[in-house]
Amino acid sequence: MPVLVVGSVALDHIKTPTAEHRQLLGGSASYASVAASFFGDVRLVGVVGDDFPPQHTELFAKRKIDLTGLEVAPGKTFCWSGEYELNMNNRKTLSVELNVFETFQPKLPEAYRETPYVLLGNIAPSLQRSVCAQIRKPKFVVADTMDLWISIARPDLVALLKEVDMLILNDSEAKQLTEEDNLIRAGKKIVAMGPRYVAVKKGEHGCLLFGRDGEFFSTGAYPLETIHDPTGAGDCFAGGFIGHLARTDDTSFANLKEAVIQGTLVASYCCEEFSLRRLEILAEAEIAERRKAFGSYIA
Amino acid sequence: MPVLVVGSVALDHIKTPTAEHRQLLGGSASYASVAASFFGDVRLVGVVGDDFPPQHTELFAKRKIDLTGLEVAPGKTFCWSGEYELNMNNRKTLSVELNVFETFQPKLPEAYRETPYVLLGNIAPSLQRSVCAQIRKPKFVVADTMDLWISIARPDLVALLKEVDMLILNDSEAKQLTEEDNLIRAGKKIVAMGPRYVAVKKGEHGCLLFGRDGEFFSTGAYPLETIHDPTGAGDCFAGGFIGHLARTDDTSFANLKEAVIQGTLVASYCCEEFSLRRLEILAEAEIAERRKAFGSYIA
Repeated sequence: MPVLVVGSVALDHIKTPTAEHRQLLGGSASYASVAASFFGDVRLVGVVGDDFPPQHTELFAKRKIDLTGLEVAPGKTFCWSGEYELNMNNRKTLSVELNVFETFQPKLPEAYRETPYVLLGNIAPSLQRSVCAQIRKPKFVVADTMDLWISIARPDLVALLKEVDMLILNDSEAKQLTEEDNLIRAGKKIVAMGPRYVAVKKGEHGCLLFGRDGEFFSTGAYPLETIHDPTGAGDCFAGGFIGHLARTDDTSFANLKEAVIQGTLVASYCCEEFSLRRLEILAEAEIAERRKAFGSYIA
Repeated sequence: MPVLVVGSVALDHIKTPTAEHRQLLGGSASYASVAASFFGDVRLVGVVGDDFPPQHTELFAKRKIDLTGLEVAPGKTFCWSGEYELNMNNRKTLSVELNVFETFQPKLPEAYRETPYVLLGNIAPSLQRSVCAQIRKPKFVVADTMDLWISIARPDLVALLKEVDMLILNDSEAKQLTEEDNLIRAGKKIVAMGPRYVAVKKGEHGCLLFGRDGEFFSTGAYPLETIHDPTGAGDCFAGGFIGHLARTDDTSFANLKEAVIQGTLVASYCCEEFSLRRLEILAEAEIAERRKAFGSYIA
């Protein structure tokens, strides 16, 4: 089954304690669509400027991502600049230039409207809702979000929660959204707000998955000794998650658990290099290999 | 197989944002021996003062813990006073009165010397080493430790690491001991320092287990919505861990994984009430019940 990914496509400038890179391919839709492409067909909706480097478009094409929905607008591509601290967990945003993304209104090509599996990548909840209004008979819709939208667009986000099957966010965001200090209580509160499921990402500590009927799953991250750049890991988690659901066309809780694991594994590869450089050369067999090792790590 | 537990026996004064309790039964050996007692016979080595409340001794007796090695010295029992912040993760020590513990030298009764499974609870590494010198032909020796000893007794701790099969410590302590920011590298460095295995506790995020031959296991904590008092949870983890090993008399890595889970479950009960109040009324069947639920939470 195909996957629809809507989100940002960006040029990232990233500083870590050991390196600095400019004009990297970034954005929630870029990471998520490439991650999902390891599992089947992907349709991308986003916007870039006329400065978007052709090699980035080629990467999408190489991953056989359908770019019918990738709008090219006059002007500059959305640009994010950030810096990581020594522990690679704490990150500060140095600058955000929205550029063509400022007026982005996702428009789904007619052929995309009946895509059964949908990932609303991390963009403003009002835009995510406008996608919900355009899709027909989806089987499973996942929305990703971030602290910014909880702070500045809470009513839209709360409305979105009633329109999607699952929310993905990280632990501090789950606490922020629910004003709960305990993550288990926070997860339960979120599924009571609308979505059937919520995945709470905890970075190096893995992920918790909650279902509205009391279902629960907890898994660690894949053990990595070196993290070159965690940017996009959360988007890759979401992309791998929805990709696995679409490939198996099975939305049982047992299969959501496996989707969490597949997302975790793709995210682990993402952290090994800057931008999408590791995923660019990743083979499906490597995901399967890491899955086998992970099986012995968690049970 | 019996378990030998050596450590502190204390009277704790604990403040949380919602409650305050004095003269609670505490100390690493108290928590660990009661936790281990759910799995089989336990022998305790420690010291108390002549003020030690009889009801605390009765609790040990009720759990059928052998107290031949519990010395009663003239003077006051070791007393620890601490306060938890609202999130129940951050704790500050308000006062420490060593009292009779100041001159404690663990002396193993002759009948204890050939105990096959040994837990060196969290006390000074020099004392833990003196126990190693007194035991004969142990099958598996686990040492627990804390930040204080890494700071003030590092040479003793480093020497101890070559004399035990496994070290237990928490994530920040693993980083402190190895001067590594990445927990996976930290774990690998510790097993290279001597112990065959290391368990790195991460509180609400669960536990990582490393083996010297590259073995690895990662598990989450049991999901708890309310934590009344996390004091002693780490000691209960250690007690449940060694208790399970002793009951099964199996030190394979597959069984160490199960021991981590059993320790996790006993620790989860510990957090539900102050001191040992929950473990005092805990039934073995409740551990089995939580084990069954946990199985579906992690796989």
